[in-house]
Amino acid sequence: MAVVVTKIDRVAADEAEAFAGFGVATVHEAQGRRGLLSADLRPVYRPCAVAGSAVTCEVPPGDNWMIHVAVEQCRPGDVLVVAPTSPCGDGYFGELLATSLKSRGVRGLVIDAGVRDVADLGEMRFPVWSRGVSAQGTVKETIANVNTPVVCAGVMIRPGDLIVADDDGVVVVPLDTVADVASAARARLAAEADTRRRLARGELGMDIYGMRERLAKKGLRYVETLDDA
Amino acid sequence: MAVVVTKIDRVAADEAEAFAGFGVATVHEAQGRRGLLSADLRPVYRPCAVAGSAVTCEVPPGDNWMIHVAVEQCRPGDVLVVAPTSPCGDGYFGELLATSLKSRGVRGLVIDAGVRDVADLGEMRFPVWSRGVSAQGTVKETIANVNTPVVCAGVMIRPGDLIVADDDGVVVVPLDTVADVASAARARLAAEADTRRRLARGELGMDIYGMRERLAKKGLRYVETLDDA
Amino acid sequence: MAVVVTKIDRVAADEAEAFAGFGVATVHEAQGRRGLLSADLRPVYRPCAVAGSAVTCEVPPGDNWMIHVAVEQCRPGDVLVVAPTSPCGDGYFGELLATSLKSRGVRGLVIDAGVRDVADLGEMRFPVWSRGVSAQGTVKETIANVNTPVVCAGVMIRPGDLIVADDDGVVVVPLDTVADVASAARARLAAEADTRRRLARGELGMDIYGMRERLAKKGLRYVETLDDA
Amino acid sequence: MAVVVTKIDRVAADEAEAFAGFGVATVHEAQGRRGLLSADLRPVYRPCAVAGSAVTCEVPPGDNWMIHVAVEQCRPGDVLVVAPTSPCGDGYFGELLATSLKSRGVRGLVIDAGVRDVADLGEMRFPVWSRGVSAQGTVKETIANVNTPVVCAGVMIRPGDLIVADDDGVVVVPLDTVADVASAARARLAAEADTRRRLARGELGMDIYGMRERLAKKGLRYVETLDDA
Amino acid sequence: MAVVVTKIDRVAADEAEAFAGFGVATVHEAQGRRGLLSADLRPVYRPCAVAGSAVTCEVPPGDNWMIHVAVEQCRPGDVLVVAPTSPCGDGYFGELLATSLKSRGVRGLVIDAGVRDVADLGEMRFPVWSRGVSAQGTVKETIANVNTPVVCAGVMIRPGDLIVADDDGVVVVPLDTVADVASAARARLAAEADTRRRLARGELGMDIYGMRERLAKKGLRYVETLDDA
Amino acid sequence: MAVVVTKIDRVAADEAEAFAGFGVATVHEAQGRRGLLSADLRPVYRPCAVAGSAVTCEVPPGDNWMIHVAVEQCRPGDVLVVAPTSPCGDGYFGELLATSLKSRGVRGLVIDAGVRDVADLGEMRFPVWSRGVSAQGTVKETIANVNTPVVCAGVMIRPGDLIVADDDGVVVVPLDTVADVASAARARLAAEADTRRRLARGELGMDIYGMRERLAKKGLRYVETLDDA
Repeated sequence: MAVVVTKIDRVAADEAEAFAGFGVATVHEAQGRRGLLSADLRPVYRPCAVAGSAVTCEVPPGDNWMIHVAVEQCRPGDVLVVAPTSPCGDGYFGELLATSLKSRGVRGLVIDAGVRDVADLGEMRFPVWSRGVSAQGTVKETIANVNTPVVCAGVMIRPGDLIVADDDGVVVVPLDTVADVASAARARLAAEADTRRRLARGELGMDIYGMRERLAKKGLRYVETLDDA
Repeated sequence: MAVVVTKIDRVAADEAEAFAGFGVATVHEAQGRRGLLSADLRPVYRPCAVAGSAVTCEVPPGDNWMIHVAVEQCRPGDVLVVAPTSPCGDGYFGELLATSLKSRGVRGLVIDAGVRDVADLGEMRFPVWSRGVSAQGTVKETIANVNTPVVCAGVMIRPGDLIVADDDGVVVVPLDTVADVASAARARLAAEADTRRRLARGELGMDIYGMRERLAKKGLRYVETLDDA
Repeated sequence: MAVVVTKIDRVAADEAEAFAGFGVATVHEAQGRRGLLSADLRPVYRPCAVAGSAVTCEVPPGDNWMIHVAVEQCRPGDVLVVAPTSPCGDGYFGELLATSLKSRGVRGLVIDAGVRDVADLGEMRFPVWSRGVSAQGTVKETIANVNTPVVCAGVMIRPGDLIVADDDGVVVVPLDTVADVASAARARLAAEADTRRRLARGELGMDIYGMRERLAKKGLRYVETLDDA
Repeated sequence: MAVVVTKIDRVAADEAEAFAGFGVATVHEAQGRRGLLSADLRPVYRPCAVAGSAVTCEVPPGDNWMIHVAVEQCRPGDVLVVAPTSPCGDGYFGELLATSLKSRGVRGLVIDAGVRDVADLGEMRFPVWSRGVSAQGTVKETIANVNTPVVCAGVMIRPGDLIVADDDGVVVVPLDTVADVASAARARLAAEADTRRRLARGELGMDIYGMRERLAKKGLRYVETLDDA
Repeated sequence: MAVVVTKIDRVAADEAEAFAGFGVATVHEAQGRRGLLSADLRPVYRPCAVAGSAVTCEVPPGDNWMIHVAVEQCRPGDVLVVAPTSPCGDGYFGELLATSLKSRGVRGLVIDAGVRDVADLGEMRFPVWSRGVSAQGTVKETIANVNTPVVCAGVMIRPGDLIVADDDGVVVVPLDTVADVASAARARLAAEADTRRRLARGELGMDIYGMRERLAKKGLRYVETLDDA
Repeated sequence: MAVVVTKIDRVAADEAEAFAGFGVATVHEAQGRRGLLSADLRPVYRPCAVAGSAVTCEVPPGDNWMIHVAVEQCRPGDVLVVAPTSPCGDGYFGELLATSLKSRGVRGLVIDAGVRDVADLGEMRFPVWSRGVSAQGTVKETIANVNTPVVCAGVMIRPGDLIVADDDGVVVVPLDTVADVASAARARLAAEADTRRRLARGELGMDIYGMRERLAKKGLRYVETLDDA
């Protein structure tokens, strides 16, 4: 009833690397405001930023058995993505599993559930995005799928898709759009650099973006006091 | 249908300055436990503390256009206050807008919605109090009011009112009561300094505040064990 | 109608001390996954870890009078545990009360409600686990019990029980099981040390824990691609 | 420190009456999408719909004393509006207070907190909009204001303002705009009646509202299958 | 590691019966505002009211095995109380289990988790108080205790304790206090009957309860308008 | 940037019809506990049960323009599925849109957002599952996709997939598995009918399902009192 898919395509390591630098907000804009995981997922320590291909893993509520199975499927540069089959805040993951993932070169964990040993995770610098922190342990009784498509924190993620995560949250980039999104993100960053310089000098976004006419057309009026309105 | 009010009264800069040092909890007590914004608003980095006159700005859900309009109305020492017209957690504000506000001498942002680029905001030391963090971007389609009275995070704020914000949250002081509240806060801090010294020496609040008689009158009894009760 | 119990048994100081080092997750496992307070209680600064005997205190909503009464019942090494009689997020506790507790040698506060002055609490290094932060003050009008059994954040706590709290949350160990739980926690930590070394070398939990056969029996299958499933 | 204002202006009874028939959604649109209380306030039984002038009442957390004071200020046709000074879900209001309000001709209660005796309230047909249901009682220890402006469920309400409430929620209409909003609501309802007839016959909103051209301009494309996109 | 306790004391059937008529709010007041379960537990249909002795049952997250075990321990007049060992909203209970409980004369279910088949539960008139509704099924893999003391929805419940539940929520009365609480509840109801009559005639609670002097002493002032304040 | 897909496969009308009778919980079990939408979606009136093919529709926060576009794509027997591109509780849908959908033979609406006019929806018997109720209106400014795959309330839904919804919630059955799931659901219902009869006669699930041996093996022990444990 449950399978582990052992052969998945991945994003090239250097291509993935660049995305951590782009930042989640930029990547999200660059692919048309799609693919953002729920803002309920937060990093357990800050700052941190990673990018890598997803190894996906389903877990039943209160049962982390399949994370142990998923570890074996992880390769250097991967990000492990864990999605519970029903909402659960238990602490599925701690420093022992982090030690294991780190020894395999995994870049981080994204989990729509709770984690524990967060002081250790911070000291080890193993980045984790989770729905919360809980010392509540889990059992190992029920199997589920590894490396099948999952919905995690409201977003469909396919094994091998690029996960980008930083202090702003987590976004997924479908594997076959990675190159296009990288270009769009670079273009966006270049444009923003110029805008930033102008804003820092005191120019107004109103003028840089040419908003005044459109605002007036929509009916925006300037008055000295409310009594003039 | 929407207006920007361009002329508002403000708290004098030096008067505002002092309030950041008083702290939110003290200011809140000093004005009779009024004016505290919902505790759901939290600083994006800690520690931080600011005080300044409010420039107010309404935004529709998922639409940050009016923040660009509001920037132009801000002066050095102001705090920008953003209130969505219906609940929305999207990331209305990031480092480009922060760059713009900072270049204009704005002290910080209070927003009953989400923000993004929080790693950058921390590095820039631009203080922001928000309902959460989200990389979800916004559109620029619908106009709304700037510098009209708003309810933000459950509290009425009028343009020019004094905003005080620190690690404990955000409180608003009506413009015309600023001097009185400053006096009350100073008196409170002076009294607390003495109490703090006595508590640090091991004296009990029970004795300092003279609570024993009133507790007994209310019916509080001391017993060695529950069986004696 | 309300009592203060003045004579309670406590865990020996050195015995308590050791538990802070064990960590909440380990203690929780060692006593059979019982006694964990709701994950909604979070430390106001991190990292921090304490252990000590509970002095318990009930408080009505928006009324912190009994905390002042409870302070007098605290001894060096204690942890104060505050449970509201109905849900309330107000800021019941701040730096003046922390100063008082600290001067009495109290190790920390666990409160299923809000606290304030959190910047000061961090600077003083007085550890607090709370449901949130709020500058909203409280009144002193209604009495309640001190040092009677309470349910705090979903868990029954008796006066004198051992409270262990760290970045993962808060767990309570019943007074009469402290020695047994200490042994179990030490055994667990010793076993984990070996597992950690093996995981760090790249061995798989799947092999260390011998999971493969049981997984196969449950029906887990390995396939190269989903089409093979 | 607290006042009861005894003389307030009110909406004329017949004018108020009409608003219950307009419905909350229509009134909200008719006044430019303003004045809607948080959707967290829900009726304790359905269906129900009322409209009347607000008598406002502040209550401390867990303390319903001032509701008893406010009852005396209520007149036939009024709606009592209760706003806690900090968030609290306790059951401030039950069938005894409802009996009292009903005997005075009050139309209903809007409270940003909890209520109890909800089976009785339904049987009595006394309409109540609340944040929840809780049997948790309250004390009578602390005073607060009656008939001063309050922020209730996120919206500023002044004594005498018109409250309109039905199964969709609660909206407030400022006293001095009641006539204008009534006209706008009537116009809206008339227009909707025609639209409803056309929609019921199978006409499309796309055509009735003439949306096709604007959608095409924004870039909307029709394709037979996603592969054509 | 887990036990089923087979012999528990219970409240006499006729004594229990009376409490359903008292109502949860009255019982809660009558025992000094103690023992109320979290207001997050709500009835799946309304109106309904039951009272009976608790059979208690722990369940792991997403695992309802022990409910099947607990059914066998139930006798006519009992109320089954189910407490998850960590928070979980899954649908642990549906119409098959309700059929089984009903055939054994059980009065209702109180569960700090989700349930399903709620349309059937309503048709069968089997009363259930739950944290929510979810069709999400559960597994049968892990054992836990039956008829040991549990904390359910924030309150300690011992097997045999009296559970009283109605549209206002759920309250527990410790077995050894049932007779005293019954007397207190009856006294309270008698007193309320008189008050209700007076309120229905238009008398004010302010006068019936004699509040005016105490309010004045606290500083409450009456003014015609705010300008007079 | 946005497309409307006009040609989608659908489930045969009579095949769909049967699923409403199966019920959501049974269908969910029959397809291996997959495809359940978040339990946060609730029906606006009860009881109700529908099944039909999904027409999918994305909407920006606070903007319901695309619902008008989606109406045109709906055919008799369909269920409209609306997914916001970021979380929003506004009232996207009311009785005018329901009138339009009803006139086209649409069976119901599933929306991960708010709706309004709920009294009318109940009177019209147009079934709606939503995250909540809000009178807050929306704008018509931004386009998005119709009939593309969406994630709604945590689950991937493809246009044409079968939606089954009742008082327990909403489940999606992928179009190509509908026949298999129907068989599995029928088998399940047949088996349950027998179990129900036996349970109603007083037989225990413990015996019907043969659980005793497995429980004993897991270590469950029966004791008369806790002291025997």
